Amino acid sequence: MKHIKDSKIVMIGAGNLATQLSINLIKAGFKIAQVYSRTLESASSLADKINSGFVTFVPEIVRDADIYILAVKDDAIVDILNEMPQVKGLLVHTAGSVSMNIFASYTCRYGVFYPLQTFGKNREISFGIVPLFIEAVEKEDEKYLFLLANSLSEKVYILSSEKRKYLHLAAVFACNFTNHMYVLASKILENEHIPWEVMIPLIDETARKIYTLSPEEAQTGPAVRCDREIMQKHLQLIENETTRELYKLISKNINEIVNNE
Amino acid sequence: MKHIKDSKIVMIGAGNLATQLSINLIKAGFKIAQVYSRTLESASSLADKINSGFVTFVPEIVRDADIYILAVKDDAIVDILNEMPQVKGLLVHTAGSVSMNIFASYTCRYGVFYPLQTFGKNREISFGIVPLFIEAVEKEDEKYLFLLANSLSEKVYILSSEKRKYLHLAAVFACNFTNHMYVLASKILENEHIPWEVMIPLIDETARKIYTLSPEEAQTGPAVRCDREIMQKHLQLIENETTRELYKLISKNINEIVNNE
Repeated sequence: MKHIKDSKIVMIGAGNLATQLSINLIKAGFKIAQVYSRTLESASSLADKINSGFVTFVPEIVRDADIYILAVKDDAIVDILNEMPQVKGLLVHTAGSVSMNIFASYTCRYGVFYPLQTFGKNREISFGIVPLFIEAVEKEDEKYLFLLANSLSEKVYILSSEKRKYLHLAAVFACNFTNHMYVLASKILENEHIPWEVMIPLIDETARKIYTLSPEEAQTGPAVRCDREIMQKHLQLIENETTRELYKLISKNINEIVNNE
Repeated sequence: MKHIKDSKIVMIGAGNLATQLSINLIKAGFKIAQVYSRTLESASSLADKINSGFVTFVPEIVRDADIYILAVKDDAIVDILNEMPQVKGLLVHTAGSVSMNIFASYTCRYGVFYPLQTFGKNREISFGIVPLFIEAVEKEDEKYLFLLANSLSEKVYILSSEKRKYLHLAAVFACNFTNHMYVLASKILENEHIPWEVMIPLIDETARKIYTLSPEEAQTGPAVRCDREIMQKHLQLIENETTRELYKLISKNINEIVNNE
């Protein structure tokens, strides 16, 4: 049997996730045989970084790879599958909310390789502690994905498509919605000409607290204390209607959760 | 003139903030002459930590201190002032949403010393980079507070009560409401028996991103991409009514902000 690091890997996609995943694979001692991206610029740019070949037409993707990693937007998965050549290798996608069964009518060896992380432009992500969630139809493929994932990260979990949906939903709260709270805070400061960076130590400590406390134990502030006077004062300061609604709804919810337990 | 480190300081309060502030003052070379707390247990416990005297009755607070730091709950400030002996020293509170003028009918030397941070039980906070916001009626007292604050932290700002209210409001979003997003994420995972710690690297990266990006630039996820299909799927997964309302309202708001700019 071939050593896992000699796998022939095709990276389909050249966005933020595809780029960081490729770079981490290279660092872990893998090679990427080929990159596919619709646009010449992004295909060649990623291929340059990782010293691989590249194509910009799906039918030109090599047929003898061991694994094809579809690290593209959810919508693009089916478009690519519709043009994919028949291959024997394993097909996986990297999406949080897309079932593994999206592959079912195209091939019989398929799975999922989902890194739970947010990938932004020009953000280098080291996969060492990024939790990787894998799934495959065949036991052999699951084992292969586990080894592949484990070469990148110490945190590898086997998780069904059904549960992965909930994981992705939780991530929307913990990442995107959290970031939106930062956005609303930054708008309040901007109006008052207070520099945004004064918030950073508070944001850091808020994140660090939950290393050792559950989020419920970590809660502080007027809502958890039921301090109606301050909440009333705050509502008067908020000009934006949606922001005011959010203030009310989140405060109410904080309160409900405290009182239910 | 007496050196600032020889100031006679009285700490009024023995909660999380009072404790961390006292410890940081001691570390910076100050002494705390006396601690006041209503309960013997908390007064003596803090006094033990910082090697100071303590009292549990407000009228017994020493009269010749240079500064009295009221690090108590907002509601308790007036109660304490009502019983405070007449003193010549500077009175300050540490509250985000309480105007400096709360002191006006009690004394003529007063101000504010507001650390922008969240203080939890058993959380050691080093004040080195905590932004400290100060305010005082008299220029001399402002100068004194600046020096005191600057002995603890490199980030000292003079800020009016009017603006401090907005700062505190922003902090509620960036800290308490952010933490509530963690709570909601943790409840989703709990239902699916997925361990909470898988979220930590994502939460960390979400916080770290805004070291270099504005929160608006940092945004990712279905709402900012207007991915209605995933948002619909997510809404179907959420059982709790308030959580579903929050998902809708925050997603709508993320979208509005993107489209307005």
